[in-house]
Amino acid sequence: MNVGDIINFLNEIAPWRYAEEWDSVGLMVGSRESYVTKILLCMDVTSDVISEAAQCGAQMILSHHPFIFSKLKSIDMETFKGEQIANLIKNNISVVSAHTNLDTAPGGVNDTLAESLHLTNSRNLKPYMPKGLECDLGMGKVGELQNSKSFDEFVIDVKKSLCIENLRIIGVKPKKVKKVAVFCGSFDDDLESLKSLKVDVLVTGDIKYHIALDAAQMGLCIVDAGHFATERIILPKLRDTLNKRFKELDIICSKMETDPFTFA
Amino acid sequence: MNVGDIINFLNEIAPWRYAEEWDSVGLMVGSRESYVTKILLCMDVTSDVISEAAQCGAQMILSHHPFIFSKLKSIDMETFKGEQIANLIKNNISVVSAHTNLDTAPGGVNDTLAESLHLTNSRNLKPYMPKGLECDLGMGKVGELQNSKSFDEFVIDVKKSLCIENLRIIGVKPKKVKKVAVFCGSFDDDLESLKSLKVDVLVTGDIKYHIALDAAQMGLCIVDAGHFATERIILPKLRDTLNKRFKELDIICSKMETDPFTFA
Amino acid sequence: MNVGDIINFLNEIAPWRYAEEWDSVGLMVGSRESYVTKILLCMDVTSDVISEAAQCGAQMILSHHPFIFSKLKSIDMETFKGEQIANLIKNNISVVSAHTNLDTAPGGVNDTLAESLHLTNSRNLKPYMPKGLECDLGMGKVGELQNSKSFDEFVIDVKKSLCIENLRIIGVKPKKVKKVAVFCGSFDDDLESLKSLKVDVLVTGDIKYHIALDAAQMGLCIVDAGHFATERIILPKLRDTLNKRFKELDIICSKMETDPFTFA
Amino acid sequence: MNVGDIINFLNEIAPWRYAEEWDSVGLMVGSRESYVTKILLCMDVTSDVISEAAQCGAQMILSHHPFIFSKLKSIDMETFKGEQIANLIKNNISVVSAHTNLDTAPGGVNDTLAESLHLTNSRNLKPYMPKGLECDLGMGKVGELQNSKSFDEFVIDVKKSLCIENLRIIGVKPKKVKKVAVFCGSFDDDLESLKSLKVDVLVTGDIKYHIALDAAQMGLCIVDAGHFATERIILPKLRDTLNKRFKELDIICSKMETDPFTFA
Amino acid sequence: MNVGDIINFLNEIAPWRYAEEWDSVGLMVGSRESYVTKILLCMDVTSDVISEAAQCGAQMILSHHPFIFSKLKSIDMETFKGEQIANLIKNNISVVSAHTNLDTAPGGVNDTLAESLHLTNSRNLKPYMPKGLECDLGMGKVGELQNSKSFDEFVIDVKKSLCIENLRIIGVKPKKVKKVAVFCGSFDDDLESLKSLKVDVLVTGDIKYHIALDAAQMGLCIVDAGHFATERIILPKLRDTLNKRFKELDIICSKMETDPFTFA
Amino acid sequence: MNVGDIINFLNEIAPWRYAEEWDSVGLMVGSRESYVTKILLCMDVTSDVISEAAQCGAQMILSHHPFIFSKLKSIDMETFKGEQIANLIKNNISVVSAHTNLDTAPGGVNDTLAESLHLTNSRNLKPYMPKGLECDLGMGKVGELQNSKSFDEFVIDVKKSLCIENLRIIGVKPKKVKKVAVFCGSFDDDLESLKSLKVDVLVTGDIKYHIALDAAQMGLCIVDAGHFATERIILPKLRDTLNKRFKELDIICSKMETDPFTFA
Repeated sequence: MNVGDIINFLNEIAPWRYAEEWDSVGLMVGSRESYVTKILLCMDVTSDVISEAAQCGAQMILSHHPFIFSKLKSIDMETFKGEQIANLIKNNISVVSAHTNLDTAPGGVNDTLAESLHLTNSRNLKPYMPKGLECDLGMGKVGELQNSKSFDEFVIDVKKSLCIENLRIIGVKPKKVKKVAVFCGSFDDDLESLKSLKVDVLVTGDIKYHIALDAAQMGLCIVDAGHFATERIILPKLRDTLNKRFKELDIICSKMETDPFTFA
Repeated sequence: MNVGDIINFLNEIAPWRYAEEWDSVGLMVGSRESYVTKILLCMDVTSDVISEAAQCGAQMILSHHPFIFSKLKSIDMETFKGEQIANLIKNNISVVSAHTNLDTAPGGVNDTLAESLHLTNSRNLKPYMPKGLECDLGMGKVGELQNSKSFDEFVIDVKKSLCIENLRIIGVKPKKVKKVAVFCGSFDDDLESLKSLKVDVLVTGDIKYHIALDAAQMGLCIVDAGHFATERIILPKLRDTLNKRFKELDIICSKMETDPFTFA
Repeated sequence: MNVGDIINFLNEIAPWRYAEEWDSVGLMVGSRESYVTKILLCMDVTSDVISEAAQCGAQMILSHHPFIFSKLKSIDMETFKGEQIANLIKNNISVVSAHTNLDTAPGGVNDTLAESLHLTNSRNLKPYMPKGLECDLGMGKVGELQNSKSFDEFVIDVKKSLCIENLRIIGVKPKKVKKVAVFCGSFDDDLESLKSLKVDVLVTGDIKYHIALDAAQMGLCIVDAGHFATERIILPKLRDTLNKRFKELDIICSKMETDPFTFA
Repeated sequence: MNVGDIINFLNEIAPWRYAEEWDSVGLMVGSRESYVTKILLCMDVTSDVISEAAQCGAQMILSHHPFIFSKLKSIDMETFKGEQIANLIKNNISVVSAHTNLDTAPGGVNDTLAESLHLTNSRNLKPYMPKGLECDLGMGKVGELQNSKSFDEFVIDVKKSLCIENLRIIGVKPKKVKKVAVFCGSFDDDLESLKSLKVDVLVTGDIKYHIALDAAQMGLCIVDAGHFATERIILPKLRDTLNKRFKELDIICSKMETDPFTFA
Repeated sequence: MNVGDIINFLNEIAPWRYAEEWDSVGLMVGSRESYVTKILLCMDVTSDVISEAAQCGAQMILSHHPFIFSKLKSIDMETFKGEQIANLIKNNISVVSAHTNLDTAPGGVNDTLAESLHLTNSRNLKPYMPKGLECDLGMGKVGELQNSKSFDEFVIDVKKSLCIENLRIIGVKPKKVKKVAVFCGSFDDDLESLKSLKVDVLVTGDIKYHIALDAAQMGLCIVDAGHFATERIILPKLRDTLNKRFKELDIICSKMETDPFTFA
Repeated sequence: MNVGDIINFLNEIAPWRYAEEWDSVGLMVGSRESYVTKILLCMDVTSDVISEAAQCGAQMILSHHPFIFSKLKSIDMETFKGEQIANLIKNNISVVSAHTNLDTAPGGVNDTLAESLHLTNSRNLKPYMPKGLECDLGMGKVGELQNSKSFDEFVIDVKKSLCIENLRIIGVKPKKVKKVAVFCGSFDDDLESLKSLKVDVLVTGDIKYHIALDAAQMGLCIVDAGHFATERIILPKLRDTLNKRFKELDIICSKMETDPFTFA
């Protein structure tokens, strides 16, 4: 098994060409020819995660967020990115990132977020058509809870499903929650599309102030459960999918990474 | 007294030409010729704020955030912005907004935020030079606490000073807090400049996930006290300044507006 | 009947998506929900036209030229546009504009101009294909007079047909006029296309000096009958079309508006 | 005397670097080394003007409007421009054009237009600062009539001064005319600047419909005396200036060119 | 026979619409109506070539490289281009250029280069699809020698086939040459595509230093036989093709032009 | 001594801010904190040069051409650039590049090229003003030979001075060579500036066909001595300058690199 085999399999479940034009996906550091027995899955390739990979003997890190997003004009080891690259190379660790292709793929991050919240009849919040492709992808999902519940109950469920203790609420709380939209990571700010769907609540992360204010003015309700929590639910699922295909591989989710935000 | 007189006085304390090129400031709706006896101050011109102004008989609203930011291609009363404009016009209420010119002016929002946190020796976090102007303005401030304190004590003080119950913390908490940076509203994401200042903590709002992550990787500590709380402290000060100059005017801060985010 | 019903009917006879990309059409001010019993038709929403609508009790103005063309960054009542908006809102008058979609639609302004000049066998001067649409629209028309006539006779007929007393002539007058091109409002300056059609004369408006000079050099003849006169002929026709569909509505053409140019 | 000497002298009275960035001025066709005894002055280098030059033995044409404005990708003699170039080259005639440098220079077209209308105390309508230059140029002029007169009298004077029989009037006619703005050729559409000057009337040319309408809405009055007539007044003056400097040269104004617009 | 007939025939063998968007092809100077009995073929329309055409009585020059590539803002006879245009016009010589349309057309420059080197089974190096066209064109060619030969033998053959005495070699010389790529004129720098073809050598011209260095790093071998030599082989072929179609025409290849580079 | 000390010294002799805006200079890979005892100088950081550095124990490579010019979106070890980066990092070798700052600095590449050809009275071919700087830099140099010589003698001298066996000549050979321009690396194609200097010959490298042709048409003579040869003369000089300042350092010029072009 080598890095290239994993990259090819990822192309089957979340084709690289599904990624947005501005995105950066695929092999970030290393070689398709590197032999792999152990893979570490993570949201972000932090210095802690690299140490974890080195210590546990993983030859490959598979991250959701791109390790190299802004192109590099130098590899300066006095910067954290340069130091991380040097550590990866010296430890012979390859890095692969699967980002918006994984967000939008069937069974990807948005689908998994909808499942985590027990939505039924999940369909695309809005269609997403990568340039030059004919495919039925979507950004965000919309679905229904089996039984409607009170907003307070819903908030408790979200916390439990996403393993978080705190979240932020925007707008007017609905009396009952039945129809729910989800948008993993960071909502794309298209409040008009959201409004036309007449959902009771949107669960997403990373909402900025001015969007929050407009949403409230438009009578919408948003639960900001955090960028980290609304996406990290993909990791166990990805681990299982990879394990099913590559039975001989040892695949683990990072134990070192946490949400960079804590509440006080 | 008319709206034009207030606009002219604001130009003395926070010149309109100090505003950033992308910003929208000054008269938003109404007429410089309108006679004014009562002004309502607010962060944002929401529907609630407009009702409040109409009910209390204010002929003018002075907001921090621009009432019209994206230019209008129509005034459609089925949208909240169109309905608000109609309500303002039918109630003969003028709207003036003072935004980045007020953020950066001496005695403006950043200065007031530094004062609220009892910083001494406050100076510019980074210089700000509006196009074609020679002036000594700055975005953000840096200063020192009179006595260093523990991070937990500092967090309690921030909450008290900004009248908030919750905030978010990013990165590694310092042992002691002495040197503090502030950046009202939303930090401009320039982590390199911040790092070079070697502050113990930055107090700001509206931090996005990827910036939070980079800040943590760079060993920085940020307190995200919210866009609303880090800016609303300007309103009482602005009320007093206007009252000193226009003694006959009745000037009040909105009692209807609140932070669109609540924590749960 | 409400404003939205009229907008929907206009979409049937001159679909909004036919408008050019740079154009601004549809609801300009007001609400689709407003109840309508009387509509005032006009070329341009001037202050006189607004007074006329208010006095005659029209709840809606339907103009050919867009009331809001340059997007608005403020509604300043010391400007004529701001004052007009305020007057419209205070009088509960909605404004809808149908511009390039009406120019190019079958039975629209260009077709009506060709009819007014008694052209037969009228076809598109050049094809017009709104982005992403498959349709057989055209800018300008070309047709033939039933019988050829002298240029002087033709000029007299144009004046009579368009109810004008003066016009401007460019280039070499042809001996006989048989094949005629028309281009309502303002010719698009594509002299090459015009030349290839070998028409005897083009009737249009708003010709600039340098285009006039080039046309003369190329041996073309143009009658500039004015922007106003070559378009206003649509109003009576539009009134009749609307009346046929909405029998209960009172629809009138403005009596207050005139061509802004007078000759001396 | 050769073409280069004339070009150098024009640089003294209307420096080439004063031309707008989008403009095209200077030598258009021919050679600085060509010997010159006779020069033909004109507004535009038409085919008639070229014949006139060839017949009268002029080795050089000096035009106001640029002979080559759009850059050439070929010299195709089936087009009028290609045929004109061939005729110029075969007749050894050089062409030089002095456009916006001559409009704005002291004693240039705008100044001459102001003089023609007997304005006193003529100053810049608005300042014009060619990129990278420090100089006191202006687009348009503003001045006063010695004695105020009725609008009808003023119109008669304009016709007489500019040798025209027809003109177009826009907006509300003032009762008395005293303060007058002029803008040679084609007004630059900056109605705001014009309004702030509080002139009784603007004399210019080439006004488009939408500008006419806005001007009327703003309460302004414009006399559109034509692009040709408001600029051609420079030719006799230019002839005299050149003759004073180059006494041995034969300099004539074209007798073949006329305004491409005629009124009917 | 006139220039237009030749232009039309060229459109059959190398359609003008095949040219790249940045290119300039077709009639450069003169008239489609000019009568032609003699045509001079050349790579570039130099002053020597124009004299040659004038002396031998050719009414038309057909060049490979565009005579007018940068659009002209003037025809200044003190520049070599202006002087050449004047000479062409005074001698009634038309110029037509067939560039990238001829490079990529079947039987065009690339095909002829492949034939000159005796390549068999010649196919496109990479597909080329002019905007909006469906056609099977290619930039460059790839083929095989009938029998593999040593690199030194191959170099001797290239010199002989292209009639050159010197060339430049880049990268590691292969032991045997069998599979060969050709790219007439100047290689387009797409080393990745070239590498994926696994050819033994590329024959092209006009290689810059940094491309040479990258090619060497990538283990490729390039023979730079010069822009002139890799394209001039089209002239005799074009002469024969034109002669077959226009039997009455006298068609000659320039005897005055040579490669601007000489080796020392 | 560490890498940062060398970078600082280079900033004294060829300030980094002198580099062109499009250029990439300074630290490319590694750390300013790395300790250095041995430096390898080269034109280009090729795989051979990296091996040479590793074998001879150099901790730093100082190259003229930027090691990272196009920004990196990944470090893929199946590409030569990715493999080189990995080799550098694994061998703890830092790379620093001094490019256009060194070309234009006093005593830099252009000055050294002029000296190598024994030019006297060397001055700037054209002024070069890095954005926002006031300094007297130049691209290229112009000077005189002490005694004029025949062109053939001059060519022999150039070969000897630059240690090359072959070069290419463009245009008409002058009878005598006295005034000479030099432009290291690759001439910037500004033939107009060159012509105005009236030099007998320009010595440069990397001339493309169309520039060669234009130069010949303009009567200029160019000796293309190659990009490599016209720049590599800086290495021994740079070695001596560094050795004078850092006496304890071992500094060597690469013995492995050669011009990627060979002549046959």
